[in-house]
Amino acid sequence: MNKKEVGLENLAKIDGAAAKPVFEALKDIAPDLNDMMLEFGFGTIYNRDGLDSKQREMITITTLLTQGGCENQLRVHIQASLNVGLTEKEIVETFIHCVPYVGFPRVLNAVFSAKEVFAGQK
Amino acid sequence: MNKKEVGLENLAKIDGAAAKPVFEALKDIAPDLNDMMLEFGFGTIYNRDGLDSKQREMITITTLLTQGGCENQLRVHIQASLNVGLTEKEIVETFIHCVPYVGFPRVLNAVFSAKEVFAGQK
Amino acid sequence: MNKKEVGLENLAKIDGAAAKPVFEALKDIAPDLNDMMLEFGFGTIYNRDGLDSKQREMITITTLLTQGGCENQLRVHIQASLNVGLTEKEIVETFIHCVPYVGFPRVLNAVFSAKEVFAGQK
Amino acid sequence: MNKKEVGLENLAKIDGAAAKPVFEALKDIAPDLNDMMLEFGFGTIYNRDGLDSKQREMITITTLLTQGGCENQLRVHIQASLNVGLTEKEIVETFIHCVPYVGFPRVLNAVFSAKEVFAGQK
Amino acid sequence: MNKKEVGLENLAKIDGAAAKPVFEALKDIAPDLNDMMLEFGFGTIYNRDGLDSKQREMITITTLLTQGGCENQLRVHIQASLNVGLTEKEIVETFIHCVPYVGFPRVLNAVFSAKEVFAGQK
Amino acid sequence: MNKKEVGLENLAKIDGAAAKPVFEALKDIAPDLNDMMLEFGFGTIYNRDGLDSKQREMITITTLLTQGGCENQLRVHIQASLNVGLTEKEIVETFIHCVPYVGFPRVLNAVFSAKEVFAGQK
Repeated sequence: MNKKEVGLENLAKIDGAAAKPVFEALKDIAPDLNDMMLEFGFGTIYNRDGLDSKQREMITITTLLTQGGCENQLRVHIQASLNVGLTEKEIVETFIHCVPYVGFPRVLNAVFSAKEVFAGQK
Repeated sequence: MNKKEVGLENLAKIDGAAAKPVFEALKDIAPDLNDMMLEFGFGTIYNRDGLDSKQREMITITTLLTQGGCENQLRVHIQASLNVGLTEKEIVETFIHCVPYVGFPRVLNAVFSAKEVFAGQK
Repeated sequence: MNKKEVGLENLAKIDGAAAKPVFEALKDIAPDLNDMMLEFGFGTIYNRDGLDSKQREMITITTLLTQGGCENQLRVHIQASLNVGLTEKEIVETFIHCVPYVGFPRVLNAVFSAKEVFAGQK
Repeated sequence: MNKKEVGLENLAKIDGAAAKPVFEALKDIAPDLNDMMLEFGFGTIYNRDGLDSKQREMITITTLLTQGGCENQLRVHIQASLNVGLTEKEIVETFIHCVPYVGFPRVLNAVFSAKEVFAGQK
Repeated sequence: MNKKEVGLENLAKIDGAAAKPVFEALKDIAPDLNDMMLEFGFGTIYNRDGLDSKQREMITITTLLTQGGCENQLRVHIQASLNVGLTEKEIVETFIHCVPYVGFPRVLNAVFSAKEVFAGQK
Repeated sequence: MNKKEVGLENLAKIDGAAAKPVFEALKDIAPDLNDMMLEFGFGTIYNRDGLDSKQREMITITTLLTQGGCENQLRVHIQASLNVGLTEKEIVETFIHCVPYVGFPRVLNAVFSAKEVFAGQK
């Protein structure tokens, strides 16, 4: 399997259907970006040893919360966090842990994104 | 035990000596900030259930890497990460996982902070 | 009065009804975050001496403008700024003062948030 | 011609109609901000030698992508980039070049803003 | 008086000697940037009505704290804050007020910058 | 040639000796990060068509200026900008163009980084 195929396999395992609209939307305007995310993101980074999928998603939602303005990507990875086995409680706790480091506003934004994703689960 | 005492106990367990100069330096200029970090940071947040100390430090070093310009705090928490049992490899892997989300420059800054802390260990 | 009660009292004075939907929305997903904002934010920080409410709101809307991506929180605190006695002119002037430090885009976002809040006043 | 007149002329050349709603919306709430953008932004900065309009717009969309949360301003300047002669391909390539420096999320946000602007062109 | 002259006068009043090395250092590499800061920053923005110098410096140090990585500029404006009459206590309180909005790390950086400036006063 | 070899070739052309200490310093702590920068950064991104090296470096120094806290990487790419043929004047003008978008502080930081690099040239 080449990196793109590995990436597709990891993408399916981790994101399930959640990232599909993103990849779909890139097709006509920036197909190479699509390939980079598959090869570099999911084929290389998510394929590394040393951290399991739960830890990787915990790191991902933390960095997205901290950056701000990445609510679309955050929602995809909140869904991915659930897919790999993080509980709703662990996701919210991850966000609450960030309060002393980034303050309440970014944390509130993330919690409300989680609320949307969790609602879509039921 | 009140929150400040809980905070002091957690601080000792997690940060060991690493945060001491920070608290020392605040004493004369902003002693209340000192108390807030103890009561709110270490007495409230780090005292919560739902995530263990390793997970909490992994989240902390991720949010500090992402913000940028927090190298002092990052070094304290890289040391704290080692104290609670994360390995050097796991810390570096946490940083590498952030590349697709924040790019190389912030990750390089964090890795070089880790290098300094790891060197001080030996 | 404990800190939470002080926080509730300060919240009522400062934010009036503006923050209520935020607190309401947190209830089921992260009630502890609710309490932290009351105890630490409104019960501790807003209860300190040394700056009056107008100064505190001026600082708050400045830090929210600067972070970017916090338009929801900014609108709440633009309303709070009016509640504690800042004029519409002073709020806009606060934003304009930030231009040399953060550039036009973040300032424009804040001014348009103010425009929405001011319109709701009439 | 004073700086404001120079600014108006440059604005017309560069942004065409794209920035008009922004200036219109500022009229009642912050007319001075309007003048500053004309005099300082378009009358001073865009009037300088040393870089041509294509280079200036390339720099502008890069800094807006990097900041995050400036999608409104980014859309105006993606349109401006087309107006001064950058191709759709060059705009997307500018964004893709940022991936190693800021990561995928901010780049995706910019690419989707471009997609909206390009769609409005046809 | 033209804007540059107004700017020079305001600069002298507000920053005193603190900004001088900055302007000196720019002379050979970017003299126009020098003029822009004088004309736009100190000649236009700091010359506006609606907020007094103390309020303007309070806003300035808040936006610089929030951005991060602007310690050089922050130190200049902490000195300027003292020059226009803010007390050391008000400056530190301004920083502490930011904790719930940006978290402890950025606030700690600002407090330590203040500590350096205050030490130089004595 | 595989991607890593392409990356090494591009690195030599673009960065010359400037990036060498970075790659050297990563060797023992995070050699994989080294490879990623070569394969993904210099082997993939810098190897794409659609923009020339001067444009790519102009975009790079803009995104680094905007992020803040990336002075190390900025100095490497200011040197790289000179290597691929941008003049000192064009580099400074790129930074000045950013003033209306990010404000003076980040621009000043970048200009002072340029001053250091330019001084090392002579």
